[in-house]
Amino acid sequence: MKIRIGIAGYGNLGRGVENALCTSSDMELVAVFTRRDPAGVKTRTGVPVYPMAEAPAMKDQIDVMILCGGSANDLPEQTPALAQYFNVIDSFDTHAKIPEHFQAVDAACRKSGKLGIISVGWDPGMFSLNRAYGQAVLPNGSDYTFWGKGVSQGHSDAIRRIPGVLDARQYTIPVEEALNRVRSGENPELSTREKHTRECFVVAAEGADKKQIEQAIVTMPNYFADYDTTVHFISQEELDRDHKGIPHGGMVFRCGATGANGENRHVIEYKLTLDSNPEFTSSVLTAYARAAYRLHLQGVSGCKTVLDIAPALLHPESAEELRRKLL
Amino acid sequence: MKIRIGIAGYGNLGRGVENALCTSSDMELVAVFTRRDPAGVKTRTGVPVYPMAEAPAMKDQIDVMILCGGSANDLPEQTPALAQYFNVIDSFDTHAKIPEHFQAVDAACRKSGKLGIISVGWDPGMFSLNRAYGQAVLPNGSDYTFWGKGVSQGHSDAIRRIPGVLDARQYTIPVEEALNRVRSGENPELSTREKHTRECFVVAAEGADKKQIEQAIVTMPNYFADYDTTVHFISQEELDRDHKGIPHGGMVFRCGATGANGENRHVIEYKLTLDSNPEFTSSVLTAYARAAYRLHLQGVSGCKTVLDIAPALLHPESAEELRRKLL
Repeated sequence: MKIRIGIAGYGNLGRGVENALCTSSDMELVAVFTRRDPAGVKTRTGVPVYPMAEAPAMKDQIDVMILCGGSANDLPEQTPALAQYFNVIDSFDTHAKIPEHFQAVDAACRKSGKLGIISVGWDPGMFSLNRAYGQAVLPNGSDYTFWGKGVSQGHSDAIRRIPGVLDARQYTIPVEEALNRVRSGENPELSTREKHTRECFVVAAEGADKKQIEQAIVTMPNYFADYDTTVHFISQEELDRDHKGIPHGGMVFRCGATGANGENRHVIEYKLTLDSNPEFTSSVLTAYARAAYRLHLQGVSGCKTVLDIAPALLHPESAEELRRKLL
Repeated sequence: MKIRIGIAGYGNLGRGVENALCTSSDMELVAVFTRRDPAGVKTRTGVPVYPMAEAPAMKDQIDVMILCGGSANDLPEQTPALAQYFNVIDSFDTHAKIPEHFQAVDAACRKSGKLGIISVGWDPGMFSLNRAYGQAVLPNGSDYTFWGKGVSQGHSDAIRRIPGVLDARQYTIPVEEALNRVRSGENPELSTREKHTRECFVVAAEGADKKQIEQAIVTMPNYFADYDTTVHFISQEELDRDHKGIPHGGMVFRCGATGANGENRHVIEYKLTLDSNPEFTSSVLTAYARAAYRLHLQGVSGCKTVLDIAPALLHPESAEELRRKLL
């Protein structure tokens, strides 16, 4: 029998999970739930769409609910609410609020006997794993995380809020020289400005003061002021043609020393190069849904994160097959 | 109370574990066991050395025994034998014999109620983990493993067995063009020859036929015949001066596609650059000793591999701290 999956929220992430399930022969998509009018939502694979409010009634038909809403407004409410009825997986990524979200989901899961895995994706997610493994293996060392080259939705939105801006796309780009210094094992101290640059493609309204828009961008506190930022003004047509993708990626490094006097240096690098940020996140969510199902079968309940999940639980093959093929 | 560690076997690996324990404040080294005469073995940190046969008598003083012998002759016997008395960790790396070794250690552990973790290191070990995560997250894709640049002990030994060779050091080197093709996401099919080259530094006896030695190397089946191999003849002095280190490393890639029609490509790269192959392996062994201790405290017994161990178990900090700092 296949693992029966529900999707809550049918945006980029939800569609990505639907696609990921097509390459997972041990799982099947049973239903999509939406807060919109279901009549207006058509799934690519024809799976039925229900109002979010009807989810609890389907608790016996779904093994794991994958939440595909946003971290700002949807998940803080939805994940604990759905954990009353389902094993749940989400990609909650507001780093500072993870402990609080964990508590809420854990309380709901302990009451219902269900299992939740939160903050699944690549950062938090695969990057967090690599920080944990790196620190554990090389305790005498330093961490480095670089993001990009990729589109930052939050920074693009911030530019769009500037008067006179019609549309914008922002790329975060790691600085090659900083990467080379980290890879060499020298364990440099790097400022914010030394690690990343920001490149902005902006569509200005006719007659808008471009100099003023550029100033507003490069001096914007938190978002741009601490970075070397380049601004390009382009047409809406060019933006739609050349910048419609949502690539992303980045690197987690652990650089450490071993030996009686720390004389041997080691560099661990984990690097992601992603054509589609949401589709990769969806793929990670789908793999962890398998783990949630298996752990729940074993009688485990409560809230977990990727740090608590053994890698073999994510993989469709048996432990015996994995030992034979992957070790 | 600290986790009390024993080391069985005091070669490169054992000394590496001794060093790694110095940077792990929650663990302490209690004793080293050797099959040599203990009177002739002096540990760097002054920890006492006992004959291997006396290990069982110390079963109540040691929480985890880290086995630091070789895979060919030591570990197949020693790991199951010591698992009768201790939680055990080893770095058994004869890939084809892992299922058999697993069975033997599992049987011993189930009888004693102890926990064993076998094949811990970087390949098998950290590379195996990354194959598992990569396949689980991107099921529609391909794996690639490259080794080096690094010293292969087995290949160096094979050269030293050729008549007229006094000493030798062999480096395995990934082919840059193959790496670039994999990183580009094109999912190439690569032959053995296309992936790695081999470079040999050889000290020949006076009067030996160098042409003949070179021929013997480059045509040697299994070891060199399938590779482009370069042979350099140098003096013993040069070998000792320029090639005494044991660096190694490599890369595991998972390249996969997502989307309704596989239109988005993703590349995951895990890369190790290691000054000292045995010291890095020792560092991984030490981190997994912490996990073995914790799992045994939870009442878990039997044989495990890195694929069965949740990452948080390796890290000295609490789950709560890890959620706050690493997610």
